[in-house]
Amino acid sequence: MTTHLTEIQDLLNAEGVDVAYFSDFHSIAYLTGFESDPIERILALIVFPQHDPFIFCPALEVSAVTESGWPYPVYGYQDAQNPFALIREHILAVTTNTSRWAVEKQQLTLDKVNALQTAFPDLKFTTDLSPVIERMRLIKTPDEIAKMHAAGRDADLAFEYGFAALAAGKTELSVQAELEYKLKMHGVTGMSFDTMVQFGPHAADPHGATNTTKLKGGQMALFDLGTVHDGYVSDATRTVAFNSVSFRQRDLYQLVLKAQREAQAAVKPGITTGSLDKIARDIITEGGFGDFFVHRLGHGLGASVHESPQIAAGNDVILEPGMTFSIEPGIYIPGDLGIRIEDSIVVTETGSESFTHTSKELLVID
Amino acid sequence: MTTHLTEIQDLLNAEGVDVAYFSDFHSIAYLTGFESDPIERILALIVFPQHDPFIFCPALEVSAVTESGWPYPVYGYQDAQNPFALIREHILAVTTNTSRWAVEKQQLTLDKVNALQTAFPDLKFTTDLSPVIERMRLIKTPDEIAKMHAAGRDADLAFEYGFAALAAGKTELSVQAELEYKLKMHGVTGMSFDTMVQFGPHAADPHGATNTTKLKGGQMALFDLGTVHDGYVSDATRTVAFNSVSFRQRDLYQLVLKAQREAQAAVKPGITTGSLDKIARDIITEGGFGDFFVHRLGHGLGASVHESPQIAAGNDVILEPGMTFSIEPGIYIPGDLGIRIEDSIVVTETGSESFTHTSKELLVID
Repeated sequence: MTTHLTEIQDLLNAEGVDVAYFSDFHSIAYLTGFESDPIERILALIVFPQHDPFIFCPALEVSAVTESGWPYPVYGYQDAQNPFALIREHILAVTTNTSRWAVEKQQLTLDKVNALQTAFPDLKFTTDLSPVIERMRLIKTPDEIAKMHAAGRDADLAFEYGFAALAAGKTELSVQAELEYKLKMHGVTGMSFDTMVQFGPHAADPHGATNTTKLKGGQMALFDLGTVHDGYVSDATRTVAFNSVSFRQRDLYQLVLKAQREAQAAVKPGITTGSLDKIARDIITEGGFGDFFVHRLGHGLGASVHESPQIAAGNDVILEPGMTFSIEPGIYIPGDLGIRIEDSIVVTETGSESFTHTSKELLVID
Repeated sequence: MTTHLTEIQDLLNAEGVDVAYFSDFHSIAYLTGFESDPIERILALIVFPQHDPFIFCPALEVSAVTESGWPYPVYGYQDAQNPFALIREHILAVTTNTSRWAVEKQQLTLDKVNALQTAFPDLKFTTDLSPVIERMRLIKTPDEIAKMHAAGRDADLAFEYGFAALAAGKTELSVQAELEYKLKMHGVTGMSFDTMVQFGPHAADPHGATNTTKLKGGQMALFDLGTVHDGYVSDATRTVAFNSVSFRQRDLYQLVLKAQREAQAAVKPGITTGSLDKIARDIITEGGFGDFFVHRLGHGLGASVHESPQIAAGNDVILEPGMTFSIEPGIYIPGDLGIRIEDSIVVTETGSESFTHTSKELLVID
């Protein structure tokens, strides 16, 4: 059994839990090595305190589970079958102690809660597995960190391709297309989220999707992108000037860069994530643009693009070596421009290491 | 107020519901016109039986909600604030009747259930909104159908680009990259899911991700893809032969094609979705390959790639004009090949219309 599964069993024994039901496919991948998004179908990992665990999945995934090296039982179901009735049978074949359950409260929806309650009328949710898995995933192993460095190298390459694709009159979409094409031809199998390319005022919307906005000289271009390497992601942002740069653009850029660098330089074990947000936010606020920094400083990442820890005001998670997260201050002025600079980093014994190394000095592309 | 929101208010009045809480961003887009995936942040639409609704969202989305034309209040929250305490305040400013709630049970997770229960200790979940919204979204309007036809035309273009990219020794990933690049250069803003290109035995895994498998003469190549047009998706699959085709490949292809065509030809108002699955499954079973058709015949689609109705054995939803779904039988022989043929269609008064028109005759690419 993997170390992680053994830790889960220890927890179940300590808390007197009869059945642990994992339903987040990221958690299942983390605990079993088998990764697949079941979309609206049912994928579950059932762990018992004293017996072997099993995976329950759509019939068409059974062979993939076996091939992944999973050494315990795997049970499939057809679309026409009631998965919860089958899960009940498989659990009762292992144990008749089924009253105290542990589930992932951040993942289990109310309809599934009700389906489990129907299958097991005396079920009580005594333990929340979401924070347990969150805590396990929070501190990355050297192997996970190595994969994130590899993903970061691909993100650096993506910036190189993206900057090279900029030209007057080109659309955001065509630059995105070129960047992703070159990346895939280089062998990068997937992006960790929709690559964001935004020009000029469009970048003032930090969630605006890449569209057919055309690039003009004197505008800034924002790239926010990430890649996947062996199940682990990168996430980084660079904003560059095109053809020329105004004093105002340069001043705003330097303000964001100062916030990003000082927050990143402050990373070390023992301080809180909230204090990092404060360092960056204070710099931008003192510069007069605090109202235009409309999001948290950053977010954890690893096997997914958004996980613990949050790097937000008031958050009191204390940094430890092996935590990985983004540091991404920004200034967004509607109708004018958006500037964001982001590196994702791992906390080390003495500070931090960045996964991406593309220069953060203001680049003016001709 | 939109017709859809008025229908929701009518339901709340009929069922004596005090507060309706929508949290699925697809539902919110459908009801309000504002579409944004909040990822792990909180986005909610609150509807009352007798008062104006409001949207609650991350602070950085407030201006986007306003710009979308939403005529009612919108309230933002910062990452450091407790969203459920704020939601409580905004609701209590409207009404003190807050005991009977309607929520989307298929979307609301147990942690959010508990947060709402903490904010409103006397809350009872009296109505499930998931089937209500599902039912509303099930029958598409002419405007929605027009968008799906447009998305279908882009999918046809994608097949054209994909077939043209095939060449001996090329990887699945490079063919996927070329296809998506050309599509984006043509102005298609997004794919509705990760484009699947699978060669030879790799296609035997109907959920296997596109990778660096190289194409050889005599293999079949499977393309499963979809595009997004104005918020509505396409989803279609074609399998082609490369350089040559064996008798066995041709026989299997014809079997899948017969199942696909006969199921599609049977579509008309009044029959059940389960009977469509049976038509296709019986043909493949009589051909001797029933055990290798390991998934349901199809799934609904519209604003999302997977929605109601399911086209699966035993499903007794009765077809009505305006329903839209995929018809995608397949045969998957591990170590050998995978063949799937898929069109998505809309049910009409007398039969169906397909959104994609790429030929389904077996194509041998040289």
